[in-house]
Amino acid sequence: MNHQNKEKAPGEKAMFACGRQSIKFPVPVFIKASASIVGKKEGEGPLADLFDMIGSDDLFGSNTWEEAESSLQRDALHLAIKKAGLHTTDLRYVFAGDLLGQSIATSFGLAQYELPLFGLYGACSTCGLSLSLGAMTICGGFADYVGCVTSSHFASAEKEFRYPLAYGSQRPLSASWTVTGSGAFILSNSRSDSARAIISGITPGRIVDFGLKDSLNMGACMAPAAADTIFNHLQDFERKPEDYDKIITGDLGSVGQRALLDLLLEKNIDISAQHMDCGMEIFDSKTQDTHAGGSGCGCAATVLSAYILKKIEEGEWKRVLFVPTGALLSKTSFNEGQNVPGIAHSVVIEHIS
Amino acid sequence: MNHQNKEKAPGEKAMFACGRQSIKFPVPVFIKASASIVGKKEGEGPLADLFDMIGSDDLFGSNTWEEAESSLQRDALHLAIKKAGLHTTDLRYVFAGDLLGQSIATSFGLAQYELPLFGLYGACSTCGLSLSLGAMTICGGFADYVGCVTSSHFASAEKEFRYPLAYGSQRPLSASWTVTGSGAFILSNSRSDSARAIISGITPGRIVDFGLKDSLNMGACMAPAAADTIFNHLQDFERKPEDYDKIITGDLGSVGQRALLDLLLEKNIDISAQHMDCGMEIFDSKTQDTHAGGSGCGCAATVLSAYILKKIEEGEWKRVLFVPTGALLSKTSFNEGQNVPGIAHSVVIEHIS
Repeated sequence: MNHQNKEKAPGEKAMFACGRQSIKFPVPVFIKASASIVGKKEGEGPLADLFDMIGSDDLFGSNTWEEAESSLQRDALHLAIKKAGLHTTDLRYVFAGDLLGQSIATSFGLAQYELPLFGLYGACSTCGLSLSLGAMTICGGFADYVGCVTSSHFASAEKEFRYPLAYGSQRPLSASWTVTGSGAFILSNSRSDSARAIISGITPGRIVDFGLKDSLNMGACMAPAAADTIFNHLQDFERKPEDYDKIITGDLGSVGQRALLDLLLEKNIDISAQHMDCGMEIFDSKTQDTHAGGSGCGCAATVLSAYILKKIEEGEWKRVLFVPTGALLSKTSFNEGQNVPGIAHSVVIEHIS
Repeated sequence: MNHQNKEKAPGEKAMFACGRQSIKFPVPVFIKASASIVGKKEGEGPLADLFDMIGSDDLFGSNTWEEAESSLQRDALHLAIKKAGLHTTDLRYVFAGDLLGQSIATSFGLAQYELPLFGLYGACSTCGLSLSLGAMTICGGFADYVGCVTSSHFASAEKEFRYPLAYGSQRPLSASWTVTGSGAFILSNSRSDSARAIISGITPGRIVDFGLKDSLNMGACMAPAAADTIFNHLQDFERKPEDYDKIITGDLGSVGQRALLDLLLEKNIDISAQHMDCGMEIFDSKTQDTHAGGSGCGCAATVLSAYILKKIEEGEWKRVLFVPTGALLSKTSFNEGQNVPGIAHSVVIEHIS
């Protein structure tokens, strides 16, 4: 390779870095198509009419909760590829992850596609992580089409993080309800009539640890990370909350929402007019007994595909900051008395004018 | 944003895609510095003199194995940043992961850096995943400096995947020994006198499942994935094994090595003259009772930092294909009778001429 000193070319400097931790894409990255599949309970909630598929039970024809979650990823990606009018082999890479130890929903869900896989872990923020890395890959000139897939499943998550369902443990009102669902997105570098929206920038998040330890109040654990990412995003892009039609967190729920609004008000930023939380949209907490709201990788992903992109596509919302939020814990870290830090990855999604 | 139809510019097409699943970087990505920290047993092996730090015991001053592994990541990144002559704030992003459920070694090891984090999971292939995404981020013009960190720990891994150490379970000769160690790498877009090597391309891997189920013979489980990635790499780059001084897998061990060589011979590719395995280098299996060899995210990462990059830096090896290998299982998937598929992510590392 040629390493002579010369004027720096694209790729030899961070031309697209924006502020301290953001990236502004010089060309639009298109969300060409997306798909959402959810479980029975999600299919009885306020967004029921918008999801592509609703399971009649939460096993989806599988023998275990983990296999069921794998099938959600497999089917969501299949449907997204079909809706994009593509073949599997048109996708160059897949960026995917889930909440389970060693990301087994992804490994066993996506193996049959035989596509190169970038495995990700960002807890419930993984949808933002996959869209961010997918968009960077498209914009960097490394692929024409990539897939971004995430999932969660109420029963596999309860088993992984808390108590077996059969215990019938009581849940405090601060607890959230892990969404059974998967969302898949096809990103592309080329405009097409059917493209749903554009990704124009990202602000990847940092781990933020306020010392909270309650895995049954994850909204409060994640709110500081969401506040940090939203604050830094607005600084980096030199924007105000009013520059967005919506600022949408993944799964803070009602308790986390209050903490987020308060934390940002301390920095003189008021997002109360713009803020929306996927976890508070997907269930009707009054009638569905879901307490603080929905959560999980599948929460942000399915609400983005079914609801948010619809609003953006129709032009009702021109620009949205999508901020999936994750709580970084395992049963081992919890049992060893560790804190539950949070992380939030944000993606700017815009209407195609 | 401007979406007028026009000649496509960089970023509007996949200019740097190479063959079916590879990327050829148009500008060199420099490995500016790296660091390796290992445990006591690794410090008694053949590469002892090459590691930056060797622990006197495997707790590294911590109270739990998981905290010990977190401290490895924290210290390895700290040392790499120092060796690069940088400050923490010079790094724009960190790409990191480990083997533990929900990647807690990473979450609790790297939080204090307060850097945006892309969390990854690729089992023992994660070092290849982090270098791949880090190099794409540099080459895409999204950052000047990024950090890539991975770790594993014998005791935390045995607890996570197999039996508590206190059981004193016997191990078959096909079993590998998880390396206690962490390797950290600083990637940069600018040449400097101290830079160690160049990343010139990558071939991200696919999940390959040959139906094997034995978590105590992971070399055999991973060999088909390594063969698939190496085969596709050579096809995509139109190269032969002789174009490489070494083709280096992460942790196939002696059993997996035989399977890899045989699988590639079936496709008329003979890499027996070039093949080396990090797991077979880090321990002396005859005297250290490590059976098939070392394994884990930390195996490939520490051997790359301490040994492989040294050989490349000195010019003894001009071009190496580095292929960390991962076995995709969790205790849940194992207990539910699932197979153990593999994945391997390869990175082309070259001497700076």
